[in-house]
Amino acid sequence: MSTRTAFLKGHGTENDFVIVPDPDNAVELTPTAVAALCDRRAGIGGDGLLHVVRSAAHPEARHLADEAEWFMDYRNGDGSVAEMCGNGVRVFARYLQYAGHIKAGDLAVATRGGVKKVHIAKADAHGEGAVTVSMGRAELPAEQATVTVGERSWPTVNVNMGNPHAVAFVADLAHAGNLFAAPPTSPATVYPEGVNVEFVVDRGPRHVAMRVHERGSGETRSCGTGACAVAVAAARRDGLNPSDTGEPATYTVDLPGGTLVITERTDGGIEMTGPAVIVAEGEITAEWIKTRIA
Amino acid sequence: MSTRTAFLKGHGTENDFVIVPDPDNAVELTPTAVAALCDRRAGIGGDGLLHVVRSAAHPEARHLADEAEWFMDYRNGDGSVAEMCGNGVRVFARYLQYAGHIKAGDLAVATRGGVKKVHIAKADAHGEGAVTVSMGRAELPAEQATVTVGERSWPTVNVNMGNPHAVAFVADLAHAGNLFAAPPTSPATVYPEGVNVEFVVDRGPRHVAMRVHERGSGETRSCGTGACAVAVAAARRDGLNPSDTGEPATYTVDLPGGTLVITERTDGGIEMTGPAVIVAEGEITAEWIKTRIA
Repeated sequence: MSTRTAFLKGHGTENDFVIVPDPDNAVELTPTAVAALCDRRAGIGGDGLLHVVRSAAHPEARHLADEAEWFMDYRNGDGSVAEMCGNGVRVFARYLQYAGHIKAGDLAVATRGGVKKVHIAKADAHGEGAVTVSMGRAELPAEQATVTVGERSWPTVNVNMGNPHAVAFVADLAHAGNLFAAPPTSPATVYPEGVNVEFVVDRGPRHVAMRVHERGSGETRSCGTGACAVAVAAARRDGLNPSDTGEPATYTVDLPGGTLVITERTDGGIEMTGPAVIVAEGEITAEWIKTRIA
Repeated sequence: MSTRTAFLKGHGTENDFVIVPDPDNAVELTPTAVAALCDRRAGIGGDGLLHVVRSAAHPEARHLADEAEWFMDYRNGDGSVAEMCGNGVRVFARYLQYAGHIKAGDLAVATRGGVKKVHIAKADAHGEGAVTVSMGRAELPAEQATVTVGERSWPTVNVNMGNPHAVAFVADLAHAGNLFAAPPTSPATVYPEGVNVEFVVDRGPRHVAMRVHERGSGETRSCGTGACAVAVAAARRDGLNPSDTGEPATYTVDLPGGTLVITERTDGGIEMTGPAVIVAEGEITAEWIKTRIA
């Protein structure tokens, strides 16, 4: 990192990110630097970091440069590299719009998980338009499992969105209790590498609310793949399968950090739509970089 | 708040703050705006907010303007008003230096808790100099109490630094367990309004390490008054009372977020010295202000 480094902070349904604009891939973002920037007390703070680089300037994305001008070099808050983050792509797109690189409309973003299609709605009287990202397809493995909190247990719907989810329909979100620790699932054979667990209640027709325990993170304010898993599980419960009926299914999903709208298309592809906000922009001080990074 | 508002972020031993420079007291910082800015995911994030105003421009500090040019209008992270924050004053002073309003040396800062004396050491090869703030005197009420974690209990030393502290000397900081919830103290009559609890181990001569449960906040990375309480309790345990011996007593206190050096003078006044860091500076976006504040 240079003696002063530009950054922004943004969030999508309170999944929050440090954004480092770096079109020419000139900023050296070591794992140490990323973890220090994402430190909520000694740094800026974020669930992860969005390194914004032109695909042509990044060795991992150069082959995608014809399809997608910009590469989301996504990093987890601990400094490790990740393939994809659904809310991250939405905030990434909002940043490109905010910085004047693109206008509202369709966009392709290169990620380590491939090229993602994004759509930014036009701004209206309520503010900037919602951002939609294609999240791929859901798989629903047939194995049955059970999740337990205190004296209550529920059967789970197994949904794989690239990562595993166990969706439990409950009478009251308070029944999920304190989600600091992973609620136990059984049998152990169904989720050998752990699982994200979603607790869901109905709010109205095709409208649900959820809480989520993210594997390795505890309860979070939002989980993009979790919201998609919940929408698909709710659709199947309601007898809706767009691939069979030829009708898309759209669910509104309330999370602690905001609301996402999930549409499953007739080809099985899932789109996630919601707010993406640039909160602030500025520069990291030279003194902080010197003491924390160098 | 205006359509774009300048801010900085800083911390002292990882007690972190949103800083809003506003010499003329022109920024309207409602409790809602403060809480939104201190929100770690949807805003900037901080334990509190330092509103930097000239004393002459603020009705609560105008009478102190001859003694102290600058007023720390301190706000808690929930938007409420507070009198004082020791680490906050240190970061406040660092900001004034960073912005070029003052140079290293002595400074007086107006707070709702009166005028505080501050000293900024000169920068050296390791970076900016440490910042010292006068924290007032400790009172040691004689009541005995006990704090319990799991199957272990310890007697506490009662120290009042304007707020109550219960200091327990333990063999291993891990014995304090998980400090999410307040460790129970007894009898209930000693701390009727709750208490901050410090667990302390020795690291060497006049050198201790501590963990703290802050009343209402859970375990925190740093607590300025807690570090002072611990230093005084350790001095008394070691047979040192500067008011009697005519010798100042200095203790080094390691906290999870960094190291503070605490000196009790022969007049009983306590000085706290440690790092204060400006992490970043920038502007809050107009869109965020419009959607969160207006």
